[in-house]
Amino acid sequence: MNAKEVKHSTHVVAMMPDVQSEHDTRRLPIDRVGVKRLRYPIHFVDRDGAAQATVAACSAYIMLSAQQKGTHMSRLVTLFEEMSEKSAKKPLKIGALRDWSALLLKRLGATAGELHLEFDFFARKKAPVSSIESTMNYLVRLSGEVKDGRYGERVEVDIPVTSLCPCSKRISDYGAHNQRSVVTLGVMLEEPMSDEPLFVMDLIRVAEEEASSELFAILKRADEKYVTEYAHDHPNFVEDMVRGIAQRLAADKRLASFSVEAENFESIHNHSAYAQILIQNDSSR
Amino acid sequence: MNAKEVKHSTHVVAMMPDVQSEHDTRRLPIDRVGVKRLRYPIHFVDRDGAAQATVAACSAYIMLSAQQKGTHMSRLVTLFEEMSEKSAKKPLKIGALRDWSALLLKRLGATAGELHLEFDFFARKKAPVSSIESTMNYLVRLSGEVKDGRYGERVEVDIPVTSLCPCSKRISDYGAHNQRSVVTLGVMLEEPMSDEPLFVMDLIRVAEEEASSELFAILKRADEKYVTEYAHDHPNFVEDMVRGIAQRLAADKRLASFSVEAENFESIHNHSAYAQILIQNDSSR
Amino acid sequence: MNAKEVKHSTHVVAMMPDVQSEHDTRRLPIDRVGVKRLRYPIHFVDRDGAAQATVAACSAYIMLSAQQKGTHMSRLVTLFEEMSEKSAKKPLKIGALRDWSALLLKRLGATAGELHLEFDFFARKKAPVSSIESTMNYLVRLSGEVKDGRYGERVEVDIPVTSLCPCSKRISDYGAHNQRSVVTLGVMLEEPMSDEPLFVMDLIRVAEEEASSELFAILKRADEKYVTEYAHDHPNFVEDMVRGIAQRLAADKRLASFSVEAENFESIHNHSAYAQILIQNDSSR
Amino acid sequence: MNAKEVKHSTHVVAMMPDVQSEHDTRRLPIDRVGVKRLRYPIHFVDRDGAAQATVAACSAYIMLSAQQKGTHMSRLVTLFEEMSEKSAKKPLKIGALRDWSALLLKRLGATAGELHLEFDFFARKKAPVSSIESTMNYLVRLSGEVKDGRYGERVEVDIPVTSLCPCSKRISDYGAHNQRSVVTLGVMLEEPMSDEPLFVMDLIRVAEEEASSELFAILKRADEKYVTEYAHDHPNFVEDMVRGIAQRLAADKRLASFSVEAENFESIHNHSAYAQILIQNDSSR
Repeated sequence: MNAKEVKHSTHVVAMMPDVQSEHDTRRLPIDRVGVKRLRYPIHFVDRDGAAQATVAACSAYIMLSAQQKGTHMSRLVTLFEEMSEKSAKKPLKIGALRDWSALLLKRLGATAGELHLEFDFFARKKAPVSSIESTMNYLVRLSGEVKDGRYGERVEVDIPVTSLCPCSKRISDYGAHNQRSVVTLGVMLEEPMSDEPLFVMDLIRVAEEEASSELFAILKRADEKYVTEYAHDHPNFVEDMVRGIAQRLAADKRLASFSVEAENFESIHNHSAYAQILIQNDSSR
Repeated sequence: MNAKEVKHSTHVVAMMPDVQSEHDTRRLPIDRVGVKRLRYPIHFVDRDGAAQATVAACSAYIMLSAQQKGTHMSRLVTLFEEMSEKSAKKPLKIGALRDWSALLLKRLGATAGELHLEFDFFARKKAPVSSIESTMNYLVRLSGEVKDGRYGERVEVDIPVTSLCPCSKRISDYGAHNQRSVVTLGVMLEEPMSDEPLFVMDLIRVAEEEASSELFAILKRADEKYVTEYAHDHPNFVEDMVRGIAQRLAADKRLASFSVEAENFESIHNHSAYAQILIQNDSSR
Repeated sequence: MNAKEVKHSTHVVAMMPDVQSEHDTRRLPIDRVGVKRLRYPIHFVDRDGAAQATVAACSAYIMLSAQQKGTHMSRLVTLFEEMSEKSAKKPLKIGALRDWSALLLKRLGATAGELHLEFDFFARKKAPVSSIESTMNYLVRLSGEVKDGRYGERVEVDIPVTSLCPCSKRISDYGAHNQRSVVTLGVMLEEPMSDEPLFVMDLIRVAEEEASSELFAILKRADEKYVTEYAHDHPNFVEDMVRGIAQRLAADKRLASFSVEAENFESIHNHSAYAQILIQNDSSR
Repeated sequence: MNAKEVKHSTHVVAMMPDVQSEHDTRRLPIDRVGVKRLRYPIHFVDRDGAAQATVAACSAYIMLSAQQKGTHMSRLVTLFEEMSEKSAKKPLKIGALRDWSALLLKRLGATAGELHLEFDFFARKKAPVSSIESTMNYLVRLSGEVKDGRYGERVEVDIPVTSLCPCSKRISDYGAHNQRSVVTLGVMLEEPMSDEPLFVMDLIRVAEEEASSELFAILKRADEKYVTEYAHDHPNFVEDMVRGIAQRLAADKRLASFSVEAENFESIHNHSAYAQILIQNDSSR
C-alpha cells in the first residue's frame, strides 16, 4: 500500500466524526474493554539480575463508564509499544506493572483497568551429578489491576515437573508409573508490597522441590540414574504436590492469597489427574 | 497385553494397600481434586426436542477433606461412563447435571464437587432469502456444582457472529471493515430454577440478533447480498454488542447472574478488540 | 435477522453477476481450493459393526483450472451436509470416501479433489485383571483424494500409550522413567483395495501391542499393579516403538505405504523425544 | 533436589551401560529421530540489519542407520544451547542453518538430518496517512536439511492480511464482507544460494501488496478511513490472492520451489475459505 497518493491534512482529520467519544444511552458500564492477542518483544529481570529478552502476549482493558460509547483502542496499543521499547533499557520485573497500570488509567481517563503479559521465562540449571548446565523454560503470566482505587498484582507460573504415583509404587513388585506434570502457581501480592521482593524463581523452586523430581533440558547418564531413583524415592500424588506447596506458601508474608494447581498427564491413562488449593493468607481482609 | 497369565483373586486385591484412603497429616483440605481431559460421546436435547449426538470433553472434581490423603479417581471416570451410556436413552439438557452432581458427592463421600462438560452443539438454520437449510455449530460448556449444600448450574456458549465497525463506516466514503467475532455468554441459573426452562438456543438467538449479522454455513448469492447489506445497516462496536445483549438478559428472571464477552478478530489489525460485562441480576443476594 | 422484508425473486437472482464463474487471465491453476474448519455430526462404523456417533472437523478442496476465477464454495459445504445426514443411516467407514470424492468432482466439475475428516473414535476395553470395561478415545483422520484419474485413501490414527525408558531402567538401581506417548500411524491403502478390509482397530492394536503398555480409562488397583509391572517388563525407546510397529505393518498387503511416528512427552524433560519411519511397501510402483 | 549427597565419579559413569549405542537387529533405518518442543531465546537479523531478540520453538532430527539402537538425544539439545548463546553475538538469518546442519551431522555421526525453528518476527510499520509507527508480528518457520549429501533450506512465513470479497461487493448495493486472512508463504531456496540474499521482509511485502489490505497495530482515524476504502478498492478472492502472489514469486530466481496458501476466516461463515498453489520454479530438476 502506497500512501503517497493520499491527500491528507490535519484539517480533514479534525472534521472526521469521533464515533467512540459519543454518548451511549443504554446506561450500562462495561467491566472490561480493550485489546488482546498482541505480541511484543520485552525484557524481564528476576533474582539473578540479568535481563532476559523474551516475547509477551499482551492484553489491556479498562472499565468504560455508562455514558461513553466506546474506548480508544489505539491508546492501549501505544502503551505496549512504549513498554516494549522502554523495557530494553529498564527491564520489567515483578512490581513493574504498578506504574504502567497508573499510566493506562491516566491515558484513557478511566477509573479501573488491567494489564496482562504472558511470556517464556528462562532459567539456567545444573544437572544434579554431571553439573552440566542447560536452559529450562517456564510460562509466566503477570497482571496488574487498578480497581476501586487499589492496585493488585498477580504472578502466575507454569512449572513442569515429574510426578511418581505412590499407589503404583506400593502395590507393584517393581517400578511405578510416573509422568510429566504441570504445576501452576498463581499468587496475589500483599499490598503494600513487602520490602523483600518476590521473584519468579522463588515460586519455581518451591514447586520443583515439592515434586517427585524437577526437570532438566540436558541429563547425562549419571544424571538420568539420579533423577530416576530420586523420583522413585519421592512418590507424590497430585494431592500431595498441591498440599506440600500450599503448606510452604501459606507461611509467606509477601502473598495476600494464592492458588496451587497440579495436572498429571497420567502415563497409564488418556486423561489428567488434577488438584487445586486456594488460600487466603490473611483471613482478616 | 494379555491378562490371561495373571493369577488374580479377590483375596490378593483385598490385601493390597489402599494408599488413597490413608490419613494425611498436613491438615489442608483440597478445593478441587479429580480428573480432566476425558472425552465421551453424549446425547443432548434442547428447545426443538430432538436429541443430538455429540462428543464432550469432561472433567469432575470433588473437595477433599483435610484428613484424607487422596481421592478415588476411577469413581469419577465411572460416572462419565454411565452418563455417556444413559444419555443415549435420556438425553442431557440444561438442568440435568443436578442429579449427576448429587450422585458424584454420594459416590465419593464428598460435601462439595463439580462437573464440567464442553461439546459442539448443532442448530439447523434457513438462509435469509433462499431459505436453504444448513447446520451451524456452537461450543457449549455446561457445569454443575454443589457447595455449602447449594446447587449451582452454569451454561456458557460461544456464538460466532459478524461485527461491522461503526467508526469505519462513518468516516469512510464507502465500505466498512467487518470481521468474525465470537460472543461468549455465560449464565448462572436462578435457584430454584424457573418453571420456564432456559434453552441453549435462547442464548444463541439473543447474541445473533444483537450482532451486525448472524452466520450461516450455506449462503446463495441472494443471501450473501442480504447479509452484506444487513451488516452494513447494523454497525456495532464490540462495546455495543455486549451492551445490547446485557440489556436483554438483565430482564431475564431465569438468570441469577451472567457474563457477556465479545471478541472481534479485527480485519484491519493482527489483534482482537474485546469487551465484557458482568451482571448480578438480583443484587439482594 | 428477518428476511420477510426482502423482496426476492428468481428473476433478481438470475441477473446477479456470478463473479466466481468469470475467466481468470493469469493462467495459473490452483492445486487446492475449498473450505476448512467445518464441524458436522457423523456416524462411523469399524470392526465391531456398531455405528458410533461422533463429530468431525471437515475440509474439502478441488483443483481449479487456470481459466476459472473461483470455485463455488457452498457446493462443498452442501456435500458435508449430505454426508452428515446420510451417515446416520449408512455409517461412514474406511473406504467410504471413494464415492464421496467422486461426487465432489462431479458436483464441482473438477478433475482433482480431496476430502478430509478428523474425529474422535471410541473403543470399549477390558482392564487387564479386573476385566472392568471402559471407553478409550483415539483421534482418527480419514482422507480421500482423486488425482490424475486415480483414487487414494489415507487413514491416520493418534494412539496414546505408555513408554518406559530402557536406558533409565538399566542404569538405575530401581525404577525407570516412563510417560505418556502418542503414536501416529498414517497409512495409504493399496489400490485396488484388498478384499480383506482394514479397520481402525487393527492399527490401534498394533501400536498398543508394541508400546511399553496400552492405556485404559478405568484401572482398579490390581490392574494398576499389572500395567506398572508390564511396562517395567517392556521398556521401549521411541526408536524401538516405531521400528516394532513398522516391522509388523511392512508385511501388510493392504497398505501401499505408511508412516509411523512416536512422540514421548518425556517425564524427565520439558521437551519431547520423537521418531518417524516412512515405508513404501511396494517399491515397484 | 540436592546433588551434594551423590557419590559420583567418572569411573562409575564409564561403567554404565550405553544402551543407545547397542546394535539393533530389526534392520530398519529410522527416517527422523530427535527432539521437539524445545524453546530457546534467539537473535535473528533480516533486511534492516538490526538484530531482534525473540523466542524459538526448536526441533532437530537425524536419520538413524539400521544397525544403531538409539540416538544420543542430549547432543541435539546441546546444539540448541549453543545456537541460542552464539546468536546473541552473531544473529541467525536466512542461510545460517547450513553450518548448524553440518555440525548436527558431525556431532551425531549421521548422514542425514534436519533443524527446525519457529519464532515471532517483528517489523516496524508506518500507518498509511498519519505515518505513526507501530510493530507488526509474523510467525516465521526456518528449516535446514541435509539429505543425500545435499543441503536444502526452507523459509515459511504466516502473514495476516485483510481480504474483501469481490462477489459480495459486486452483488450488494453497498458494503462488502471482509475479514482477517492468513497467507502462508513457504519457499525452498535455490542451491547454490543466490548472491542476492532473500529476506523474510521480501516475502511479507509480496503477500501484503497482493492482499485487499495489509494490517497495522496502530491506525488513527484518517488511517482507518484509508485502509477501509483501499480494501474496498482491492477486492480479492482467496483464489486471487494465491494467484497474485504465485505470479510474482514465479519470477524469483532465488527460489527453487514454493507454496502459497491463503485462509480467509470468513466473516459471514463459521468456517474458512482456503487455497494453495505449489510451484516448482525450475522444472528441469
